[in-house]
Amino acid sequence: MTEKKAFSSLEYLFKPRSVAIIGASNNSSKIGFKVVDNIIASGYKGNIYPINPKGGELLGLKVFKSIEDVDDNIDLATICIPADYVLEGIQSCAVKNTKFLSIITSGFSEIGKLKEEEEIVNYAHQHGMRVLGPNIFGIFSAKCPINATFGNKYIEQGSVAIVTQSGALGIAMIGKTDTEGIGLSAIVSVGNKSDLDEADLIEYLVEDEETKVIVLYIEGLKEGEKLVKVLRNVTRRKPVIIIKSGRSKRGAMAAASHTGSLAGADNVFEDVISRQVGGLRALSVQEALNWAKFIAVQKELPKGENAVIVTNGGGIGVLATDACESYNVSLYDNREVLKTIFDPVTPSFGSTKNPVDITGQASSDFYEKAIQAAIDSPDIHSIICLGCETGIFNASELNTVVQNKYLNIFPKKPLVFSFFGGADFETGLFTLKGKGVPIYSDVYEAVSCLGAYYKHYRNMIYAEDHDIGHKEPIIDIEEIQVVIDEVRKDNRHFLLVPEAMRVMEAAGIPIPKSFVCKDLKETIYYAEEIIGYPVVLKIVSKDIIHKSDAGGVALNLENRNELIDAYEAIFNSAYKFKPDAKITGVEIVKMIKKKDAVETIIGARVDNTFGPTVMFGLGGIYVEVLKDVAFRAVPLTRSEASNMIKQIRSYPLLLGVRGEDPKDIDGCVEVILRLAKIIQLCSDISDIEINPVLAFAQNKGVLAIDTRILLKSQSSEVK
Amino acid sequence: MTEKKAFSSLEYLFKPRSVAIIGASNNSSKIGFKVVDNIIASGYKGNIYPINPKGGELLGLKVFKSIEDVDDNIDLATICIPADYVLEGIQSCAVKNTKFLSIITSGFSEIGKLKEEEEIVNYAHQHGMRVLGPNIFGIFSAKCPINATFGNKYIEQGSVAIVTQSGALGIAMIGKTDTEGIGLSAIVSVGNKSDLDEADLIEYLVEDEETKVIVLYIEGLKEGEKLVKVLRNVTRRKPVIIIKSGRSKRGAMAAASHTGSLAGADNVFEDVISRQVGGLRALSVQEALNWAKFIAVQKELPKGENAVIVTNGGGIGVLATDACESYNVSLYDNREVLKTIFDPVTPSFGSTKNPVDITGQASSDFYEKAIQAAIDSPDIHSIICLGCETGIFNASELNTVVQNKYLNIFPKKPLVFSFFGGADFETGLFTLKGKGVPIYSDVYEAVSCLGAYYKHYRNMIYAEDHDIGHKEPIIDIEEIQVVIDEVRKDNRHFLLVPEAMRVMEAAGIPIPKSFVCKDLKETIYYAEEIIGYPVVLKIVSKDIIHKSDAGGVALNLENRNELIDAYEAIFNSAYKFKPDAKITGVEIVKMIKKKDAVETIIGARVDNTFGPTVMFGLGGIYVEVLKDVAFRAVPLTRSEASNMIKQIRSYPLLLGVRGEDPKDIDGCVEVILRLAKIIQLCSDISDIEINPVLAFAQNKGVLAIDTRILLKSQSSEVK
Repeated sequence: MTEKKAFSSLEYLFKPRSVAIIGASNNSSKIGFKVVDNIIASGYKGNIYPINPKGGELLGLKVFKSIEDVDDNIDLATICIPADYVLEGIQSCAVKNTKFLSIITSGFSEIGKLKEEEEIVNYAHQHGMRVLGPNIFGIFSAKCPINATFGNKYIEQGSVAIVTQSGALGIAMIGKTDTEGIGLSAIVSVGNKSDLDEADLIEYLVEDEETKVIVLYIEGLKEGEKLVKVLRNVTRRKPVIIIKSGRSKRGAMAAASHTGSLAGADNVFEDVISRQVGGLRALSVQEALNWAKFIAVQKELPKGENAVIVTNGGGIGVLATDACESYNVSLYDNREVLKTIFDPVTPSFGSTKNPVDITGQASSDFYEKAIQAAIDSPDIHSIICLGCETGIFNASELNTVVQNKYLNIFPKKPLVFSFFGGADFETGLFTLKGKGVPIYSDVYEAVSCLGAYYKHYRNMIYAEDHDIGHKEPIIDIEEIQVVIDEVRKDNRHFLLVPEAMRVMEAAGIPIPKSFVCKDLKETIYYAEEIIGYPVVLKIVSKDIIHKSDAGGVALNLENRNELIDAYEAIFNSAYKFKPDAKITGVEIVKMIKKKDAVETIIGARVDNTFGPTVMFGLGGIYVEVLKDVAFRAVPLTRSEASNMIKQIRSYPLLLGVRGEDPKDIDGCVEVILRLAKIIQLCSDISDIEINPVLAFAQNKGVLAIDTRILLKSQSSEVK
Repeated sequence: MTEKKAFSSLEYLFKPRSVAIIGASNNSSKIGFKVVDNIIASGYKGNIYPINPKGGELLGLKVFKSIEDVDDNIDLATICIPADYVLEGIQSCAVKNTKFLSIITSGFSEIGKLKEEEEIVNYAHQHGMRVLGPNIFGIFSAKCPINATFGNKYIEQGSVAIVTQSGALGIAMIGKTDTEGIGLSAIVSVGNKSDLDEADLIEYLVEDEETKVIVLYIEGLKEGEKLVKVLRNVTRRKPVIIIKSGRSKRGAMAAASHTGSLAGADNVFEDVISRQVGGLRALSVQEALNWAKFIAVQKELPKGENAVIVTNGGGIGVLATDACESYNVSLYDNREVLKTIFDPVTPSFGSTKNPVDITGQASSDFYEKAIQAAIDSPDIHSIICLGCETGIFNASELNTVVQNKYLNIFPKKPLVFSFFGGADFETGLFTLKGKGVPIYSDVYEAVSCLGAYYKHYRNMIYAEDHDIGHKEPIIDIEEIQVVIDEVRKDNRHFLLVPEAMRVMEAAGIPIPKSFVCKDLKETIYYAEEIIGYPVVLKIVSKDIIHKSDAGGVALNLENRNELIDAYEAIFNSAYKFKPDAKITGVEIVKMIKKKDAVETIIGARVDNTFGPTVMFGLGGIYVEVLKDVAFRAVPLTRSEASNMIKQIRSYPLLLGVRGEDPKDIDGCVEVILRLAKIIQLCSDISDIEINPVLAFAQNKGVLAIDTRILLKSQSSEVK
């Protein structure tokens, strides 16, 4: 086997200097024809080499009988020959220093032929080639331009890049974006993702100047961990809109079957991709395209979050208010300022509160003045302009408003429109939409665009919150490894209680202090100097297993007298219970009053999709019955851990209810970060769950009471 | 004051034999012109009497200087004169035995002029006239036909009736329904609802043969109780689609300000209107119209809930699966039957599981065969047909499928379409939509129509569940009234503990049994014959208020020996505590072990909007922090009370978790029904809250531990 060649930059995939079509065909119904036809039609300036053993000519180009006959290096080879010949085909590509293979051919892992697919990727990698696909429709890149797909011939150029797992939906999206006036900088089909996947592509696209918005259509993730890492950096620079099917239980069934029942796959996806690393998750393809279109045309980020609604009807204004809450758009609330801004442009029987109601008597003139007032005011950062058709406000009036206040001036503040009326109105709306105006008959559609944009805004503004590495907790990984090695030696997958406690100590996670004392003097010393009252005493004897039954436990000892009495009492009881027992001492431990604490569950595990993840929830039924739990991928920042805690519905219990003290949330954050560190650094550990972690009052700390740690199976044991 | 005249049937509002327009005008920009013009244009066959002091002629009709000059009785008088003259106007109407007043004029309660509005309604009622409005756009009724509105001249006739509180949105809806090909049987604007409201109108519309679907646009309810009562009967006969704005906190702020903080207005609305009495609640006007259009054309109810998805792409199939879960559409799951049905029509590399994937190779022929197979199978009850545009399946193919399998045959099974593609596809879709085909580019839109229809289906199928009156609990209202009278005499608004306990006993709600015994013998008798161990003893003495401090309480007495010891002990302690105390006996009460029970909160109150309502939740933080609570209006059926309990998120706790026994849910239902009865029958009570009601294991009953009862303020006290 030859030495592995280095991979080339993805620049050559998006801007190839030469392209070969393996399987070019004269038959216009074949993919091998369509691809060549599309490449030519797209105005591709590089060299095009159709390959077919028959030779001859195709669309004015010479057809080479073999790629080996081509006197050029190949940047991109598009493969559209039957599955059985693909390996042979790419072997010939290797000879010509091919950099990228776009394997359109289907019939690989998607129908169970995993080995065949693996073989191709292995061969490609050994020869410095990277693979797109198989089972794709190809790639379109506007910057070249090149349309090496078998989809639509004409693709409008623009600033939205689409990466799609589904070929069918991808081709349909090309059609749809064209109709909606959305220009594309690229559309890439990733199909089986045998090599290149979403993460690789968006890593390139974030650097691509033509691309302003990235849209991902995902059916299932292969390497979630990689996507998380890339998204973390990309979303603070460009908006990434994500449609992922399988939100529902039934839809996610297949995906979830290999994960824990608690961690319904979509649950973790939503938390990690949307909440943690800022992906803009759309419900449907239509919604995603609405967002992409809207965000792509924005000139600059808004200056803040104060949105205002301008409407000619109260009813639709309230509907929009509801929509603002759904999509997390903040309506500006300073009534005095609103009055100053809008009083001059609102009829006396209208309202300058937000929604600003310019009343059913409003003509285009009123709308224009109100919008202009909002544009001019530094206190207003975005505008939702709504209305119903009225006797006064008709389709032509609407057109005037949109023309004068949007198309002619294109305001720097985000502005969405939602209008509702009859046939003329609808037609007008449709025409305006075609001109790129964000105008919808449904207020929810309009407001959702603004909501998505504001999420992107927050990604950008709070980008530093995503920075990993600051003030990371220090844990003693070597000590943990020592424990693990002992467990491995003992041929176990799980840690015993003392072992788990050693791991907690090495990780700096507080556990109840426990000491074994030889005599009363030492016991008093620990109670008073080290632990502090109240304490618990337990007899220590190999001969007495059930200490309570033997009267060998004394709880809640508040002072020295009680301690001395109890010390004697448990010794007496123990000897009475088992006269020949060999007692080695007493264990002294802090008495914990659970009623002063909230029980939380903090865990870390290696997720099948996302790799190391952490979870947080309140103990008992909150997690088990109400499924009130949050997930994050590792590594995570302090503010991500803190947001994770805030996310759960039962969060108010940590803030303190019924006059209780707020609990030590910082302590919980610390435990999450430390578990994250363990699961990240100790590749032997598959699962840690501390249940409960008691969270005491603020600044009073937390205590890990019961810790369960599982190790990964080792390949040697699988044998 | 003359004797009150009886009101006429609403038939005369929807089918007036004569109509007067008070304020008819020659000025074509005035409402008084538009209404007359619209009435004439609508082909109204009855007598039209324009009224204007100037007299003359209008659009070929004689204008009467005063209604008194008209030699006819008036069924409907449309009032469009300035607010200040309206009272005078309706006084003249009374002379002509006018049955209905449609007061278009605004400037009444909506701008604070409550008294003026009240005056009009009082006058109208005293003279047998009913009032629509004021502040409306009028009424259109297809059965007459009459378009007595100042909205669009042309309104397409059909089977959807709209009742709208917002005039602006109403007029816009007329336009929109026209564009969408939705015919109207009626559209009525209710405005300020000074007299006639949604409930009155739908009570009429349910009997109207032309009306198949009713759509309500509501901004706020005045008489929720009345609407609930009407909806309960109407929704089991016709679908009622409801848009209500103010879902969000901010949107509901105004509405909520006068209700309890727990019962956020929309919370109660959603539970009562949507969950209890079967209203089909749409998020937006667009969604409501989609549903109305779809349901209006259905020929018969489906035979069951087995839905099937037919698709040419897996991705869009999974998106639709997600949508089915969102909208409560059940996907049929019997793989064997599915295989039998679809194997003959599915390519070998497709899937006969649900979604049925006929693959990207599918032409119209495949679609037609698959749809026909679904239509033919008795196991399939509804069909969701989806797809993407492909090289094979283009706009013309789509048109063929819809033409052959929908428009030509109009299948008796509900069938929705969702397709996604480019410009031709979109245009095709738009054209098909205009022909009345339920086809959408967004799968969620398509599936939501089916979901709404299935909710209607369930209303119809399970209609008997809504029957009130069966096996209602019997409670001793007289005894409760005696207690209340005593409290009133004492000038209190709240009941003391023993009073509340008497009410609970009269209502047949179990409370901890408590008896005062004079001596030990009697105490033993009650412990062993009446209550059963374990018991609690408490000293009874007017001189000892804090019994525990005096050592006057003994808990958890398990047997006779313990009882005797404790009896002596508490007497000794009490005398030691206060030697001169006059001890009248001991109170004996069952020892309750809370750990065997789940704490619930059950309440009943008079809601400002819905009148008597009940609420249910789990005790403590579930209600207080997690707001996990359900509401229902009174009266309610046993199955409604049971559904109310099932609705809360923490319901699994009542079913028993972690190996615990299921709890006595029937006991909770019984308490809910009994509180409902009290709040319904005792008009003095404004509020009852039992917190907690302990729910023990199934068949072990429940116990009302702490009951708080408040009385309404009396008018005499308000003075």
